[in-house]
Amino acid sequence: MGGNSFGKIFKITTFGESHGVGIGVVIDGCPSKIPLSEKDFEYAMARRKPGASPADTLRREQDYVEIISGVFKGFTTGTPITLFIRNLDIDSSPYERIKNIFRPGHADYTYFKKYGHVDYRGGGRASARETAARVAAGVVADKIISPIGVNVIGYTIEMGGIKAKNIFIDKINESPFLCPDIDASKKIEKLIDVVRKEGDSIGGIVEIRVIGCPAGLGEPVFDKLDADIAKAIMSVGAVKGVEVGLGFSSAKLKGSQNNDPIGIDGFKSNNAGGILGGISNGDDIIIKAAIKPIPSISKEQDTIDKQGNPVKLKLKGRYDVSAIPRIIPVLEAMIKIVIADHYLRFRLNKWNGGFKI
Amino acid sequence: MGGNSFGKIFKITTFGESHGVGIGVVIDGCPSKIPLSEKDFEYAMARRKPGASPADTLRREQDYVEIISGVFKGFTTGTPITLFIRNLDIDSSPYERIKNIFRPGHADYTYFKKYGHVDYRGGGRASARETAARVAAGVVADKIISPIGVNVIGYTIEMGGIKAKNIFIDKINESPFLCPDIDASKKIEKLIDVVRKEGDSIGGIVEIRVIGCPAGLGEPVFDKLDADIAKAIMSVGAVKGVEVGLGFSSAKLKGSQNNDPIGIDGFKSNNAGGILGGISNGDDIIIKAAIKPIPSISKEQDTIDKQGNPVKLKLKGRYDVSAIPRIIPVLEAMIKIVIADHYLRFRLNKWNGGFKI
Amino acid sequence: MGGNSFGKIFKITTFGESHGVGIGVVIDGCPSKIPLSEKDFEYAMARRKPGASPADTLRREQDYVEIISGVFKGFTTGTPITLFIRNLDIDSSPYERIKNIFRPGHADYTYFKKYGHVDYRGGGRASARETAARVAAGVVADKIISPIGVNVIGYTIEMGGIKAKNIFIDKINESPFLCPDIDASKKIEKLIDVVRKEGDSIGGIVEIRVIGCPAGLGEPVFDKLDADIAKAIMSVGAVKGVEVGLGFSSAKLKGSQNNDPIGIDGFKSNNAGGILGGISNGDDIIIKAAIKPIPSISKEQDTIDKQGNPVKLKLKGRYDVSAIPRIIPVLEAMIKIVIADHYLRFRLNKWNGGFKI
Amino acid sequence: MGGNSFGKIFKITTFGESHGVGIGVVIDGCPSKIPLSEKDFEYAMARRKPGASPADTLRREQDYVEIISGVFKGFTTGTPITLFIRNLDIDSSPYERIKNIFRPGHADYTYFKKYGHVDYRGGGRASARETAARVAAGVVADKIISPIGVNVIGYTIEMGGIKAKNIFIDKINESPFLCPDIDASKKIEKLIDVVRKEGDSIGGIVEIRVIGCPAGLGEPVFDKLDADIAKAIMSVGAVKGVEVGLGFSSAKLKGSQNNDPIGIDGFKSNNAGGILGGISNGDDIIIKAAIKPIPSISKEQDTIDKQGNPVKLKLKGRYDVSAIPRIIPVLEAMIKIVIADHYLRFRLNKWNGGFKI
Repeated sequence: MGGNSFGKIFKITTFGESHGVGIGVVIDGCPSKIPLSEKDFEYAMARRKPGASPADTLRREQDYVEIISGVFKGFTTGTPITLFIRNLDIDSSPYERIKNIFRPGHADYTYFKKYGHVDYRGGGRASARETAARVAAGVVADKIISPIGVNVIGYTIEMGGIKAKNIFIDKINESPFLCPDIDASKKIEKLIDVVRKEGDSIGGIVEIRVIGCPAGLGEPVFDKLDADIAKAIMSVGAVKGVEVGLGFSSAKLKGSQNNDPIGIDGFKSNNAGGILGGISNGDDIIIKAAIKPIPSISKEQDTIDKQGNPVKLKLKGRYDVSAIPRIIPVLEAMIKIVIADHYLRFRLNKWNGGFKI
Repeated sequence: MGGNSFGKIFKITTFGESHGVGIGVVIDGCPSKIPLSEKDFEYAMARRKPGASPADTLRREQDYVEIISGVFKGFTTGTPITLFIRNLDIDSSPYERIKNIFRPGHADYTYFKKYGHVDYRGGGRASARETAARVAAGVVADKIISPIGVNVIGYTIEMGGIKAKNIFIDKINESPFLCPDIDASKKIEKLIDVVRKEGDSIGGIVEIRVIGCPAGLGEPVFDKLDADIAKAIMSVGAVKGVEVGLGFSSAKLKGSQNNDPIGIDGFKSNNAGGILGGISNGDDIIIKAAIKPIPSISKEQDTIDKQGNPVKLKLKGRYDVSAIPRIIPVLEAMIKIVIADHYLRFRLNKWNGGFKI
Repeated sequence: MGGNSFGKIFKITTFGESHGVGIGVVIDGCPSKIPLSEKDFEYAMARRKPGASPADTLRREQDYVEIISGVFKGFTTGTPITLFIRNLDIDSSPYERIKNIFRPGHADYTYFKKYGHVDYRGGGRASARETAARVAAGVVADKIISPIGVNVIGYTIEMGGIKAKNIFIDKINESPFLCPDIDASKKIEKLIDVVRKEGDSIGGIVEIRVIGCPAGLGEPVFDKLDADIAKAIMSVGAVKGVEVGLGFSSAKLKGSQNNDPIGIDGFKSNNAGGILGGISNGDDIIIKAAIKPIPSISKEQDTIDKQGNPVKLKLKGRYDVSAIPRIIPVLEAMIKIVIADHYLRFRLNKWNGGFKI
Repeated sequence: MGGNSFGKIFKITTFGESHGVGIGVVIDGCPSKIPLSEKDFEYAMARRKPGASPADTLRREQDYVEIISGVFKGFTTGTPITLFIRNLDIDSSPYERIKNIFRPGHADYTYFKKYGHVDYRGGGRASARETAARVAAGVVADKIISPIGVNVIGYTIEMGGIKAKNIFIDKINESPFLCPDIDASKKIEKLIDVVRKEGDSIGGIVEIRVIGCPAGLGEPVFDKLDADIAKAIMSVGAVKGVEVGLGFSSAKLKGSQNNDPIGIDGFKSNNAGGILGGISNGDDIIIKAAIKPIPSISKEQDTIDKQGNPVKLKLKGRYDVSAIPRIIPVLEAMIKIVIADHYLRFRLNKWNGGFKI
């Protein structure tokens, strides 16, 4: 049973493999009459594109988003929106050498166990390339939530163990790692240089903040807003942990410290991260995601092949040193999709003597 | 749009409020011919029941699970299984006094914003009582996964800031907090005594381990096993963070440290927590959940009422000091439900010349 | 994989067996603040109740609908509404004699093949008693659609081969068979008397008309309004055919005869039955359902037992002579549920610069 | 909320418009290791293609199915299969003249009411061209059901009022209308010639037979096999009625006539059409679909434009005289998709001490 759809009303279904024809997404459930053009995708795709940051690889995809369906004369029609990104810069030959070897930290082993055979070219469906379709879908989601004033911003708060001490949102774009603390950003830049020479990789922590989200979004008891966000974030490869508000830190506090008092102007603190009982409370929604170091490293690793023979694996070529910052627009996109979906769901909750049309 | 169903094949739908007639669950998608009787629920319900631990409240529910449908002569029929737990020990009178006041840290405010009115008696649908239905459903899920050798075990690894230094699984039941480190457990017991006198509450961290899970469970790219687990865990009230394997700690490691090498006998370490690319790899699945301190405290708190007037709130009565350990069987149940659902989904992936019946 | 849920936003999940504890339904997705009380169900349940018509059996259920959850102080809360109807007048003993025999025309054989064992008491889950839960859910659906002026009316247009020649909607309730042609109704009454004495049964055709449905309901290309109606109607036991508008008669017409011309005051005819391209066009929606004769008859029938041995079966006791008229409120309820679901879905289609809340 | 997905385990999502870039389908949930190549689609697409029958139009699409994803080295991978058919022979200019006019019998009016604007080129999403994606998906479904011996065959039993008196399955392909009665086929051919000259159109009745379906498919009480088939068939544009087995004829029979007696070699008749209680009984499944005459005719018709002004509309160009026979492979495909989906669902019902892998 497939698992390539996400969302209940604003529902996306992604498809495609790293070295196939291309990747894409069908969005079913987007309202009609929303302005949408191929130009709208350029900025977001460029942010996710390889090569924009010192932490990146050399694959150079233009990642041009083609609108295949669902838009007529510049406006959505209410029918399925299909977005397609053709794979252009493909060289599958490096994968031939290792096609029978399970790369540690990758999905090769589990895909093989599950499906019996696997598209080994560049990770196939398990490649991070799959996330380009999520970013494209996020652009459409943004068209639903930005008119109501919702803004989703992600940034790096830790990378390779180096923490941002200050968070100045307006500084994010000055850092090649989207780190809002320029001092930390400079230290990260040096660390990456060292790690790259070692042929190793690093991870980090990304924080995403949803500003301007109205109160009332989220559907208890299972489709709570934080539950759906947790799934959305954890479904992105490389993510190993999710926190809402204080997250694991709240486990160390007392109730009297952790509860957010309420005043006549709203909540006096935001330890909850903007969500109470699975429903947005009107404050900023604050999410943290733990990003593991990229598993593709040049150092020699112990593994086995499909026949179970031990292998010393040394990957060749140049890889990203970190999934950060390229993963940030992906995480932002997933949050946008959750908020758009729940915003549409939210509109169904209020009864007004018959929802007069 | 409701959000009270969970799972795709083994699908549960829960219902009921804390002070209503009762709470229950309909399970649609459970295979036929599984032995099931009301006696099967007793052990699990007793573990979740209030009053079993020093951290608990005084509400004394028998939590007897009645099988309303779906079982005939001791076996499941393949039709919907309905389990019902009547609310017996109800006294709603304490809630009349505070029915117009939003309790900090509770869902009163957001339910009111979302739905326009709210069943204020004991938290209504937002009450932790709702989780009794999850535990009951987990018992049925366990009937699917235990025959294939899957065992789900939860325990406390931190409470009120006190950490378990050693994890001896066989010691869990010796601790009233299901803490596998008896020294830590004793310290927790003393801390709880202090906190209770302060009229305050504490949180902690629970680890859940899935032992014996076959490789191949999980459906990329959105219904990854860890993504569904993250949603399942985060959907439980009081949870503010989820980690898989090393979780946030992996963000500090290098790829060469974090990757689990593979040997001829399997993975040589388990930093991944048993999941790669969203699919189980055959190792133990290791999940951590951050539990916030219980919001109901006797200390005075600032809040407002429904008209927006400031209120000094001092809750009366005795409350649980911590959601731990009662939340542990709930988290175990949610994981069991995810594993059962994905096990049934997994069976659909393999093609064998037509799946001859 | 279960199949006991229906609807996407207004989603119902039914449960229960004919001779078990009772039957019921969980409705997830009903908006909050809709007035609802147990009294609201009385009229609809009485219409479906056995014994109200000359065509009925002798089972005398009071069919009292208990609200288990989702309603507080007379209004829906937005959380799951659970409705429960206890089975009171149960005598399973007649079924012991035939528990190993497959009754022709019944689901005994297929349930046994599918599930491996079967609750044989009164048909178990396959009993028409299951439809009482649908009728109860229909009452709630009606609370959504009646405020916007939608009215759903079912009536008998043919029974045992006797056709209604005139359709006077206001005469329906004068006929014990809800037949709008009193002459036909009288002939049917006589026929039933004969058939009952023969120990046989009859079927017929029911027409359901949705009056006042706004244009725009239905979601191409699969969740078309007529497609969802067809599923809703065909899911009712005993239904063997569904028509929209002229139905099979349109197959004999030319395009110039079948197309409904449009004038400045709307459509000039309604051959389409109120649906074009799967979307309501504002005219009456007209549906016909073919009802097969009840399979339980007193005449001797050839069949086999579970071991495959031939059996001459002669059912004892008194059975309904026809599923009509009791099936009419069931069909009405299913249509109401479809319309309510699609009305809520419809509200999501229109974009207005951000759906300002 | 979109409605462009169908099926629960074998789930298809279609997209695309008549005069856009192309149309396609994403299939999520197809098992891995099924052989599949682009060549596999040629036969089915050719059958649906315009121009193959005397009843057809002149649009000449090659309808080449490109596999965009989900297949590696000739076998499905278990990831989403995307099939794409580019629109080649497009001339949208004839639609400019009538872009503000609602064509009678078409979806122009309802799409406009629902979505506020509409892709008027060739019917946009409401075009019969959409069904090419269904036929492509049906080819993949067939790969699941044909290895277990299931065969789905559709044929014309009535067209323009002319009925097939004999059904010789092996004669179907001798008739340009897939009519198994060659005498009737010849009469139809003459009728079509007349109707074409009149500038009019005709409809008819198609029967589809599922041969070799195992007993046990179908999920009561809503996802009954006949309920899902009814939805599948009714979701095809032009269908106005669906019958299972005797359908509306069973409404005229007595129970003693309609019940299928069971003998030691199986059912002695098949009035039920192979389905009892919503579950397949092992006999042939027999479905009838009423096809309305094509609404595009050259005769003058009364209608209005978007401003509500009356218009005398005379469509120019040449249109199909009937949706038959091109609709037959579409109906077959939909049934194949239902059977494949339910076959995969069926495999989940049987419990065998833990479904040992």
